Amino acid sequence: MDETEKNSVGIVETRTIRVVEQGKPLELECGKTLAPIDVAYETYGRLNEAGDNAVLICHALSSNAHVAGLNSPDDKKPGWWDIMVGPGKGIDTDKYFVICSNFLGGCSGTTGPGSTNPETGKPYGLDFPIITIADMVKVQKLLLDKLGIKQILACVGGSIGGMQVLQWTIECPEFVKSAIPIATTTHLGAQSIAFDAVGRNAILANPNFANGRYEAEKGPDGGLGIARMIGHITYLSEQGMREKFGRDLRNADSYSYDFISEFAVETYLEHQGQVSWKDSMPIVIFT
Amino acid sequence: MDETEKNSVGIVETRTIRVVEQGKPLELECGKTLAPIDVAYETYGRLNEAGDNAVLICHALSSNAHVAGLNSPDDKKPGWWDIMVGPGKGIDTDKYFVICSNFLGGCSGTTGPGSTNPETGKPYGLDFPIITIADMVKVQKLLLDKLGIKQILACVGGSIGGMQVLQWTIECPEFVKSAIPIATTTHLGAQSIAFDAVGRNAILANPNFANGRYEAEKGPDGGLGIARMIGHITYLSEQGMREKFGRDLRNADSYSYDFISEFAVETYLEHQGQVSWKDSMPIVIFT
Repeated sequence: MDETEKNSVGIVETRTIRVVEQGKPLELECGKTLAPIDVAYETYGRLNEAGDNAVLICHALSSNAHVAGLNSPDDKKPGWWDIMVGPGKGIDTDKYFVICSNFLGGCSGTTGPGSTNPETGKPYGLDFPIITIADMVKVQKLLLDKLGIKQILACVGGSIGGMQVLQWTIECPEFVKSAIPIATTTHLGAQSIAFDAVGRNAILANPNFANGRYEAEKGPDGGLGIARMIGHITYLSEQGMREKFGRDLRNADSYSYDFISEFAVETYLEHQGQVSWKDSMPIVIFT
Repeated sequence: MDETEKNSVGIVETRTIRVVEQGKPLELECGKTLAPIDVAYETYGRLNEAGDNAVLICHALSSNAHVAGLNSPDDKKPGWWDIMVGPGKGIDTDKYFVICSNFLGGCSGTTGPGSTNPETGKPYGLDFPIITIADMVKVQKLLLDKLGIKQILACVGGSIGGMQVLQWTIECPEFVKSAIPIATTTHLGAQSIAFDAVGRNAILANPNFANGRYEAEKGPDGGLGIARMIGHITYLSEQGMREKFGRDLRNADSYSYDFISEFAVETYLEHQGQVSWKDSMPIVIFT
């Protein structure tokens, strides 16, 4: 057993549970209803007898419930926050019962635009209702109720995950004992709304988007790539990007004067833009 | 004569002059050559006998030589800096001989990717060489030589126009008596390169771009719209955008929860994205 394995939660399973039944739809903030709702989640560690050691992790945009460990022995990469979650790590799974669920609309196992609309037998696409942070938290609460969790010791998350953390403290102040919102905000400002609009328009403008009725294998990859590139600009500060890339050239000592990316920062963005997140387009507005 | 007309340079003509002949190509910084080169320009006021009252204005991205006045009596809008240039205005055409030319690659009258490639008889498209700020200034100097101008009293410009102003002071320090570079830089940093890359990729990814061989009436408007939206985010600071738009809704008191733009800032960006700048895609890298 090497060092990595020793500090890992090991092989873990993403489970799915139905939290809203077909006949009992959930009322969303937009006024529409949704049913059924399935939630994909993972847990690590054990809930103690007092039931007071649960840590809820809320993931960021385009992410999923697979926080730590491997989903199979063949996996090459562990979960997205494996560095923080595991035995003896910052969020210590020897002490805490850790839960993370894919948020509503997240499309990595939890019901979202890619799920089957029971009214049509086809994927929802653009018919999926616009959801809010409060809706995501409401669905997470239904999951925790199903799991028999009576209290959260800490609610942790960054970015849109942090917005959920803040929402948890408003919705259920008694239920949540502590909150660790990271790199987040109570609401988007004008510039963030603007970046969001550009990314959304890039997807909508892509002919393959086909008004949201695209086939699984022929999605709006080009538009999604542009949206992801924009996202990755906003994930680094101007200063951070300057220190990380500056004006370094990709792989040459002088300009090549062509349309192939010249600069290291362009290579980085192109790589991020090409990463495939098939079926992972959450439809969200931030309230 | 109303107040507007009194302070206007009146009806002005955009002239075009050949500064590089077919047989005598210009060597560009990328190592390629280009010929012929025509330059579109406007002038206002008169060059005095001493020849020391010339003011050169360098325009910004997607702009043109039409700084002030009207090109025809039917024009509804005057030139792009009419508020600053005219009789008795900041750049006083009663005192100064004002010149502005569309920069190389600018596609508003000056040779650019939309011009006919003499080797093929078709528009250059992507075969147009990558040009630099220094190339633009070199072509402006050829224009001034043709006009018999021996000295510039002031060289003025903002953004990419300001980069040209700075380049002028390096290339011809004796020729330029003063420089007014506005909201500009000596070079793009990592974040600006990144924004540039996203805009370029949005255009390249648009199927209508057709590898640069699109027809005049069927261009990559969708991709160009995304690039223009990104540009218009960068033209305002985060604070400026917040003060101007905040989270104001477009035309409602509450969220409509649909994919139509909710926020005022989105309306602004969509408007800017839809403005047609046909044939106005400069191909530039900043050195």
